[in-house]
Amino acid sequence: MTVQTVSLNKSHGGMQGVYRHASRETQTEMTFSVFVPPHEENARLPVVFYLSGLTCTHANVTEKGEFRHACSELGLIFVAPDTSPRGADVPGDANNAYDFGLGAGFYVDATQAPFAKNYRMWSYVTDELPKLVAENFPVDEARQSVFGHSMGGHGALTVALRNPARYRAASAFAPIVAPSQVPWGIKALGGYLGNDRQVWRKHDTVALIEDGARFSEFLVDYGDADQFLGEQLRPELLKSACEKAKIPLTLRRQAGYDHSYYFISSFMSDHLRWHAARLKA
Amino acid sequence: MTVQTVSLNKSHGGMQGVYRHASRETQTEMTFSVFVPPHEENARLPVVFYLSGLTCTHANVTEKGEFRHACSELGLIFVAPDTSPRGADVPGDANNAYDFGLGAGFYVDATQAPFAKNYRMWSYVTDELPKLVAENFPVDEARQSVFGHSMGGHGALTVALRNPARYRAASAFAPIVAPSQVPWGIKALGGYLGNDRQVWRKHDTVALIEDGARFSEFLVDYGDADQFLGEQLRPELLKSACEKAKIPLTLRRQAGYDHSYYFISSFMSDHLRWHAARLKA
Repeated sequence: MTVQTVSLNKSHGGMQGVYRHASRETQTEMTFSVFVPPHEENARLPVVFYLSGLTCTHANVTEKGEFRHACSELGLIFVAPDTSPRGADVPGDANNAYDFGLGAGFYVDATQAPFAKNYRMWSYVTDELPKLVAENFPVDEARQSVFGHSMGGHGALTVALRNPARYRAASAFAPIVAPSQVPWGIKALGGYLGNDRQVWRKHDTVALIEDGARFSEFLVDYGDADQFLGEQLRPELLKSACEKAKIPLTLRRQAGYDHSYYFISSFMSDHLRWHAARLKA
Repeated sequence: MTVQTVSLNKSHGGMQGVYRHASRETQTEMTFSVFVPPHEENARLPVVFYLSGLTCTHANVTEKGEFRHACSELGLIFVAPDTSPRGADVPGDANNAYDFGLGAGFYVDATQAPFAKNYRMWSYVTDELPKLVAENFPVDEARQSVFGHSMGGHGALTVALRNPARYRAASAFAPIVAPSQVPWGIKALGGYLGNDRQVWRKHDTVALIEDGARFSEFLVDYGDADQFLGEQLRPELLKSACEKAKIPLTLRRQAGYDHSYYFISSFMSDHLRWHAARLKA
């Protein structure tokens, strides 16, 4: 696989790159960013995958995430993919909605026409991208973790629950934890996966836990001024599911914070330290 | 003066605001951002003014500057104005150039038609904005400092040299130090101030120092991979002028860094700590 460098900038002692490649899964060009911290020659470093939320590309967290200082200090590679396939031939939402289609892949492999051909973000983030990154960057494949924001928090938690041996840590900022029960999720899972709600359960954190999936522990932050809290995020459903399943959950209600990168960047270092402790254990 | 709140987001324990007001100086609406760190009720805090570079608005540093963590830790208010007047009636560059007119006010009060009416960024950043901020935020007016990037580094150093009693500290990232001698500066100073180069000297850091202006000390960082270094920035001219004038200059050549916010954000905390030490002395 050939990776094309879009940009490369020194930052916080490491190198922030943006890359493009022809994706086997999405059959489009996909763009992603990778930060490589300063490291000794031939070192293999732990890698953290960050999955972004609705409307985002790799650029939002890359520009506003404030992760580089901590990644340099902790020796973590930070990878940020896009949130959907893009391109003139990629079908989107007929109404150009922000919550379905472009920028809203929801980290599933679509089964429904016309989305099934390109919308394969599950396979992209769990298989194609990790391999591509491992081939092209100084990654220790035995030390991977995943986190994300909102739709990407949903992605991170489901990815971790279905691949507990692969990821040593998982956390989220303001995740959608029960997409089968909230408007964003019902629209996306219905549109990509069809009307059989049983199929949705593999892409629903709360349902996965109810069905027996397990992970070592989660860290989740949300802001109590988040405009999507009550309708779309519903952290209480995660709390209840984790309690029943005895999955340790550190669930933090952050007073006054909203859904934006002003919130995410405030707790980014916390999350990275939490990941580093588990990646280096 | 009435200040309208455009947005207000909690971040790193403080509040990041974006504000708009009708400016007396530019006769336009001007937008600026202010971060207020967590503080005790009735406290008056030191304030740092950050002047941005060509093409920027308040938003670039506000989103990419990574200053909030350090400002919260150090108890600093951070103010970021726009770089020019804007609006349908504001004359710009006939060719829509990035280096003159909109986004390129160069921190001077223009004397030449058609710019003299609106392009009054010198008076805006040294007089109108500090007063506006002091009236509307918990600022200790006795503790102000100034810094900036590129064109904004030029602004910060000239503002400090001409108001040494007002500002307790001044620093810059990749500043234009001798605009009278480099293409960006010659175009801007000629366009705004006319052809009499004697008039330019009050807006040229090196010339101001040659003409006797003094400041306690400067901190300046630049990247040796900065694409504008040799033609536009020329830090060696500042070094030579400061040496002759015996102005202490901490001039740091940062290996591998370019002109972008990836560079600025890497050394933002350093600069803020340097300012805080002098603001709290």
